[in-house]
Amino acid sequence: MPQHDIRADSCRIEAFTAERMRNPIPAAVNALVEGFKNGRWTSHIEPVPIPSKGEVIDLIEQAQCILFPGFFAKDILRPENLDYHLGRQLSLFYENLANQISSAIRHDCFRHNQACILCNERSYEYAAALIDSLPTIRNLLETDIEATLTGDPAAGNADEVIFSYPGLFATMIYRLAHRLYELNVPLIPRIMSEHAYHRTAIDINPEASIGSHFFIDHGAGVVVGATTTIGNRVRLYQGVTLGALSLPRDAGERLRNVKRHPTIEDDVIIYANATILGGATVIGARSIIGGNVWLTESVGPDTRVMLEPPKLVYIGEKGEQ
Amino acid sequence: MPQHDIRADSCRIEAFTAERMRNPIPAAVNALVEGFKNGRWTSHIEPVPIPSKGEVIDLIEQAQCILFPGFFAKDILRPENLDYHLGRQLSLFYENLANQISSAIRHDCFRHNQACILCNERSYEYAAALIDSLPTIRNLLETDIEATLTGDPAAGNADEVIFSYPGLFATMIYRLAHRLYELNVPLIPRIMSEHAYHRTAIDINPEASIGSHFFIDHGAGVVVGATTTIGNRVRLYQGVTLGALSLPRDAGERLRNVKRHPTIEDDVIIYANATILGGATVIGARSIIGGNVWLTESVGPDTRVMLEPPKLVYIGEKGEQ
Amino acid sequence: MPQHDIRADSCRIEAFTAERMRNPIPAAVNALVEGFKNGRWTSHIEPVPIPSKGEVIDLIEQAQCILFPGFFAKDILRPENLDYHLGRQLSLFYENLANQISSAIRHDCFRHNQACILCNERSYEYAAALIDSLPTIRNLLETDIEATLTGDPAAGNADEVIFSYPGLFATMIYRLAHRLYELNVPLIPRIMSEHAYHRTAIDINPEASIGSHFFIDHGAGVVVGATTTIGNRVRLYQGVTLGALSLPRDAGERLRNVKRHPTIEDDVIIYANATILGGATVIGARSIIGGNVWLTESVGPDTRVMLEPPKLVYIGEKGEQ
Amino acid sequence: MPQHDIRADSCRIEAFTAERMRNPIPAAVNALVEGFKNGRWTSHIEPVPIPSKGEVIDLIEQAQCILFPGFFAKDILRPENLDYHLGRQLSLFYENLANQISSAIRHDCFRHNQACILCNERSYEYAAALIDSLPTIRNLLETDIEATLTGDPAAGNADEVIFSYPGLFATMIYRLAHRLYELNVPLIPRIMSEHAYHRTAIDINPEASIGSHFFIDHGAGVVVGATTTIGNRVRLYQGVTLGALSLPRDAGERLRNVKRHPTIEDDVIIYANATILGGATVIGARSIIGGNVWLTESVGPDTRVMLEPPKLVYIGEKGEQ
Amino acid sequence: MPQHDIRADSCRIEAFTAERMRNPIPAAVNALVEGFKNGRWTSHIEPVPIPSKGEVIDLIEQAQCILFPGFFAKDILRPENLDYHLGRQLSLFYENLANQISSAIRHDCFRHNQACILCNERSYEYAAALIDSLPTIRNLLETDIEATLTGDPAAGNADEVIFSYPGLFATMIYRLAHRLYELNVPLIPRIMSEHAYHRTAIDINPEASIGSHFFIDHGAGVVVGATTTIGNRVRLYQGVTLGALSLPRDAGERLRNVKRHPTIEDDVIIYANATILGGATVIGARSIIGGNVWLTESVGPDTRVMLEPPKLVYIGEKGEQ
Amino acid sequence: MPQHDIRADSCRIEAFTAERMRNPIPAAVNALVEGFKNGRWTSHIEPVPIPSKGEVIDLIEQAQCILFPGFFAKDILRPENLDYHLGRQLSLFYENLANQISSAIRHDCFRHNQACILCNERSYEYAAALIDSLPTIRNLLETDIEATLTGDPAAGNADEVIFSYPGLFATMIYRLAHRLYELNVPLIPRIMSEHAYHRTAIDINPEASIGSHFFIDHGAGVVVGATTTIGNRVRLYQGVTLGALSLPRDAGERLRNVKRHPTIEDDVIIYANATILGGATVIGARSIIGGNVWLTESVGPDTRVMLEPPKLVYIGEKGEQ
Repeated sequence: MPQHDIRADSCRIEAFTAERMRNPIPAAVNALVEGFKNGRWTSHIEPVPIPSKGEVIDLIEQAQCILFPGFFAKDILRPENLDYHLGRQLSLFYENLANQISSAIRHDCFRHNQACILCNERSYEYAAALIDSLPTIRNLLETDIEATLTGDPAAGNADEVIFSYPGLFATMIYRLAHRLYELNVPLIPRIMSEHAYHRTAIDINPEASIGSHFFIDHGAGVVVGATTTIGNRVRLYQGVTLGALSLPRDAGERLRNVKRHPTIEDDVIIYANATILGGATVIGARSIIGGNVWLTESVGPDTRVMLEPPKLVYIGEKGEQ
Repeated sequence: MPQHDIRADSCRIEAFTAERMRNPIPAAVNALVEGFKNGRWTSHIEPVPIPSKGEVIDLIEQAQCILFPGFFAKDILRPENLDYHLGRQLSLFYENLANQISSAIRHDCFRHNQACILCNERSYEYAAALIDSLPTIRNLLETDIEATLTGDPAAGNADEVIFSYPGLFATMIYRLAHRLYELNVPLIPRIMSEHAYHRTAIDINPEASIGSHFFIDHGAGVVVGATTTIGNRVRLYQGVTLGALSLPRDAGERLRNVKRHPTIEDDVIIYANATILGGATVIGARSIIGGNVWLTESVGPDTRVMLEPPKLVYIGEKGEQ
Repeated sequence: MPQHDIRADSCRIEAFTAERMRNPIPAAVNALVEGFKNGRWTSHIEPVPIPSKGEVIDLIEQAQCILFPGFFAKDILRPENLDYHLGRQLSLFYENLANQISSAIRHDCFRHNQACILCNERSYEYAAALIDSLPTIRNLLETDIEATLTGDPAAGNADEVIFSYPGLFATMIYRLAHRLYELNVPLIPRIMSEHAYHRTAIDINPEASIGSHFFIDHGAGVVVGATTTIGNRVRLYQGVTLGALSLPRDAGERLRNVKRHPTIEDDVIIYANATILGGATVIGARSIIGGNVWLTESVGPDTRVMLEPPKLVYIGEKGEQ
Repeated sequence: MPQHDIRADSCRIEAFTAERMRNPIPAAVNALVEGFKNGRWTSHIEPVPIPSKGEVIDLIEQAQCILFPGFFAKDILRPENLDYHLGRQLSLFYENLANQISSAIRHDCFRHNQACILCNERSYEYAAALIDSLPTIRNLLETDIEATLTGDPAAGNADEVIFSYPGLFATMIYRLAHRLYELNVPLIPRIMSEHAYHRTAIDINPEASIGSHFFIDHGAGVVVGATTTIGNRVRLYQGVTLGALSLPRDAGERLRNVKRHPTIEDDVIIYANATILGGATVIGARSIIGGNVWLTESVGPDTRVMLEPPKLVYIGEKGEQ
Repeated sequence: MPQHDIRADSCRIEAFTAERMRNPIPAAVNALVEGFKNGRWTSHIEPVPIPSKGEVIDLIEQAQCILFPGFFAKDILRPENLDYHLGRQLSLFYENLANQISSAIRHDCFRHNQACILCNERSYEYAAALIDSLPTIRNLLETDIEATLTGDPAAGNADEVIFSYPGLFATMIYRLAHRLYELNVPLIPRIMSEHAYHRTAIDINPEASIGSHFFIDHGAGVVVGATTTIGNRVRLYQGVTLGALSLPRDAGERLRNVKRHPTIEDDVIIYANATILGGATVIGARSIIGGNVWLTESVGPDTRVMLEPPKLVYIGEKGEQ
Repeated sequence: MPQHDIRADSCRIEAFTAERMRNPIPAAVNALVEGFKNGRWTSHIEPVPIPSKGEVIDLIEQAQCILFPGFFAKDILRPENLDYHLGRQLSLFYENLANQISSAIRHDCFRHNQACILCNERSYEYAAALIDSLPTIRNLLETDIEATLTGDPAAGNADEVIFSYPGLFATMIYRLAHRLYELNVPLIPRIMSEHAYHRTAIDINPEASIGSHFFIDHGAGVVVGATTTIGNRVRLYQGVTLGALSLPRDAGERLRNVKRHPTIEDDVIIYANATILGGATVIGARSIIGGNVWLTESVGPDTRVMLEPPKLVYIGEKGEQ
């Protein structure tokens, strides 16, 4: 029976090819290990802890459950059990946060070749300081929700905003990350803001300073630079950049810690895709910046700045374009 | 041996600091509980169910498995077992969807202080209505895939489109969310569209009306407002905004339920970053809107609108800029 | 006792409604099964394997652990155990990658109605080829990190960049996907780049060619088309499009495999939201393209191109706008 | 090239066999569905809830965390946070337990064709009653731990007992299940005791009555029948059966609810593999029953009962046995 | 400040000890690898698949869901959706079972150095054969449930039996494993029966032959040897051994495949801890074997065998024993 | 419409009962917290780590993967990658084991109120010592497998033994736990042996001393006491107890650390359910102890001890028994 033979042959072929199949791994291991030895930035091959991105994301989700328990907690909540729930959730958050902060600090000491004095104690202090701030952050977020409901006709009610507005989510993360930045906690604020960016395409540097009643609509492409200052009741639409003027090739070193981003005063509205650049640029209170506007100088208060509409060319369609 | 002593001392220090480490939690619990009592929008601390964001995302993934079983189902499929697979998957989807809809309705009743009459029955009716529509939605998505293959030279084949085109993913979610919006299901459509936004940076309001053969290329930053109407065979590129004209500060209340977003007729193409605003703005059939164009008034059919190119300044590079 | 009666009645009602509740599933199953039979693109209802999106995402995460073990590996690493860790991780990656490639190839054969000759062997060869390239990719990524630190004043140190820069993440995925594209592996490169897009809103087609020291800042909305060529030390800001000129309605078929996207030479900087289109467009070395610039023709080397600023209209605010 | 041909052939064979491979599933589905229709005991194919074995096991683990938080809780505990932890854990336990009890009751109503009057309310009442008893159960378990330390020279300390003594684990489950049995909760007590049996090979019927300071050593094969009564400070070794006399063939129906198992008074010790049978059999206080003893009649207090040792035969070993 | 110094010293000590901490792993790796090369039975270090214990346990749980869907299925079942559920569940079971059988066969071929002819096809045939038998197995299990209800006064109803009787669980696994043994599937039957043993402490060899209406009460320690034959309506209590006579030291080789275990005819009852040994021993129909009886020879039908009760010694308790 | 009214009433009833539903949790929390304060053995409410039962079970599974990688490793193994696999697995095992040992030691220090000197260093030393022993343990287990194949006619091949023999599993855990006991690691050995008991109903105290070629058949109910000594090539059947003579009521304190269990010399076979008690009892080499034998005194070498068979009573069956 030919069927039988063919199959047996095919088995032999399989065996043969399995044998000759080369093993690429030892060479790659060696080359990579060599690379890590010589690499300038990519090592960290030592048992010194380093914050875990996954854990930091978990912390954000825990904070969201604490700040909006009725929306995101998995437990069934009742008023009389709420303090148990929050107390337990905060205890958990406290230990996890202190743990990640401790990794961040130890790692920073290691990178700077410093002894780690009372690192564990400091971690708990910083974590406690963030917990102290949570009620304030919650109150701020409530003003942000109010601003959203006031400003967006598509927002049916607060539930929709809390559940589904990327702007609120990014603002919540900013407010947490900013507090940690104020406490000089290394690394973690940036990991947090990256997570906000990944989820919302909104990029708010944790160093920025932002007032109450903040509302970002849609939000994809919004960039808020590190040295930006934003007042109260400010509203941003998608694609707004609050950035630095054009940067020299070695900007990374020359401009670190210099005020490079604009100041936005109270009650300003900035429409979609407007770009405002420069550390000396101030947008005065109650001003309105139109869509697509490109600004590199200051604007007084109560001013409306619009693009003089570029000319459009209308062509009756004919053939392929 | 000094080593021994030092270590013992260090232990004592640890004990000491552990003791004095303050416990920030009770104060935070009390402040937060107080806040929830007074907060206007952030409570929901009662055992009334509320939809779960995680469950709604699961529903989307289940729907994707039902609509494209050959691509996303984890089971091994064979033609003769397909109806078992779909039947079981739909049974699951039916119960889960009814469950989430029931939470949304009950919560809505609770928020409006209404008695919940036949809530459970209505949930099953709505869920059944969405299931009735799934074959139609599948057919529409097939036209969307066709439009993608027709319009994008980078689309190698339908598999790549189904697996990896964010535009198709956002469109699928829109079509599901839109049907639930038509059924007056609260909250869930917005949670769905937020998920689409989170995954694709494309923001299509579930209230918008969109025809067949819809194709969004790249898509980051696309915004389609709630009262937009889009015809058949329309193509959008990244960053296109179909939005409202500038909004008063209290837009949230004054403009709810007013037609605020444009109408796009059949066969229109809108290139990247074009902005079309206003409820009275109509783009006529077969027209083409160029990249970066900013439009607040209507365009007739068969018209091509381009930006008159703004002048560029060319400077030979010298020194730092 | 009236209470008892009412409740019993209510039970009877429940039973009644449960009974009459219609079952929408059989009809939907039939309609969907019918649809899959007739659908042009949505079937794959056969036990021929197809790559799993989830598995491909896992592969990306495994690669990230291999390329930056000190940052993302879950194991505690020590220098003396590093080769065990990498060797095991690569062995795992090798099998999983070969597995997914095999599914992609088999599926491609099936789609083209070809016999699958030595598919398994070829899968291992391709997987081995990618593993061979990992040290090179690691070295390239090190140049990308260097470019980020050089170019971004907000980048505190390499750790922040590796942990939290979406640009680096998108670049890493591009470099992996591009190598698989070079090996003619079907489907998987596009699934990878979609994942990058989903996480970062940066859309780099795996077919594009990109040199060393590549830096994308912020990045939301960046689009790099399939036939783009990018030199060394190029820097892009958010919203930059390297795209095709306007496309005919049937572009999908007519322009596949034609050079449609620009060429960017070494050391070019392109600021936010600039748009550069066309296969013949070349940006000369060391040139700088300003924000919002729209370019469809070539620019010589050492040139700076800026938008002549459109006129702004300043209106003292009065009443609602 | 023969290699090529063979392989192609082998592919064809694969295709061929895949085709002819029969599909056993539709026939099995039909036969099983038919069986469920006619089966006397195996249906439950209706959307009436039924307790979930997995959930009941989770409840046991939650109870273990509540009763021994320092040993099994996953949270880091501190004295000042303990009440948050317990409060939250109990809230969770309360909802889950009420949920399972509700399923058990509803299912019982369904099985007996009764209307389900206030089932939900009763579930919460029963769950609350078990929670009321938890402090008492904890105190009883503390006496069981004390008895273990007193009686077993191999028990190094209480930690070992709590972590690793199957007897204590089975006793804990018995004490929980017994309380639920007292409350007339259907089904769940037996599911609990089965889990104890599965983990420890100790089979204590939840209907049995057992005093304080109870200690089972090793425990495999211990059987304590439903109508057994056990006093305080009783100690059992492995393989002890407290059972019924030989049963008629139709025992299931004739002897339900009749006292069939022995009574063990205070301070009795029963050594390994002893068998004590019959509802009228009473072992008087402080008596000691030797290993392997088989007893079907009562023994007074302060009595020691030993097996008169059966004769042993000693044979010098020669050849095979 | 002494505090500071001590801490710094302690840090130095830590660094010191971390350094000198020896790395035991390379030596252990080498010794183990050496051992695997020389080991007679412990290798299998090759990419030939071997069944996965975890997967086999999953198969058992899937089968339990198929045989008792109303009790263990996680889906909500309704009569009209039952065939979807079963069809999908069986499709899954079919693929997984064929997969594990294929591993078992391939591994057997590998161990015996045989070519693997049509292994994949045979796996599907065997899996289909087991699926063909599932309705019959279900019917047999229904008789086992009936026997339990008839024989055990403590069994309140069929639900308790199905949910919580270890005897029924062990019998279900036996019936599945026995069918696979009949099909000559290697390895998997024993992995299944080990799982039954692990869960129930009941050890039924899959080669044994057991009739309908089989009931094991309690069950811990029950052993049913490979060549045992058991008729219909047989009842066993805990600790019953149906075993081989004493075995020579090299029994493993000399007695493989010889009838070594007893034959139990219809309607026999065997009470707790009875031991019946030998391949020629036959217990005649309707006989009853008392507790603790030790039998190595045959018993006619309708006979009752009891232990003549050994003498007990009663001692009034005095002082310590 | 009566339907509507009834339903509304039923809603009111629900509201009413929800209100009056009492909250049992605060009282239970208080009572439990009070209990933990006063409890003698059940506290551990402090942030001092304590070993995790779950982690210890994971360690056992990791060890099983290291000792039998071809059987239990989830990775696909190839000879050339084996050392990577083992090295990584051992690195993981090393960290985890040191971690658990550290918790056990710290907890022991805490319990005895001792300062914890170099606890971390000692943990790594003990973990390294166990790793040093793994090759020896692997060799011992190979002799145990050989003994199983030699002694059990039902053991088809080594694969079945490794995959499914509870005796081998219990022996593996004993050999690991015994080594940790020798190193004076607290708590963990007992947690390990409890896991063995839970899985196999075999209870071997980690303090016992057991030679090579050890084989336990079936095994349910086997008890090997803490001060037992077992030679090489010993075989035990199910239900064998190697225990202590009857114990005074306060045995726990009086007999700790006294030799209380028998000594079994080389090549002894002990059949099912035999009981051998007492610290002075020695079973001489090559002796055979029959089933059910009860021994409290020594037996010379080369002796066979059988029970003189107790008389059986045969009654022709008539009517109910």
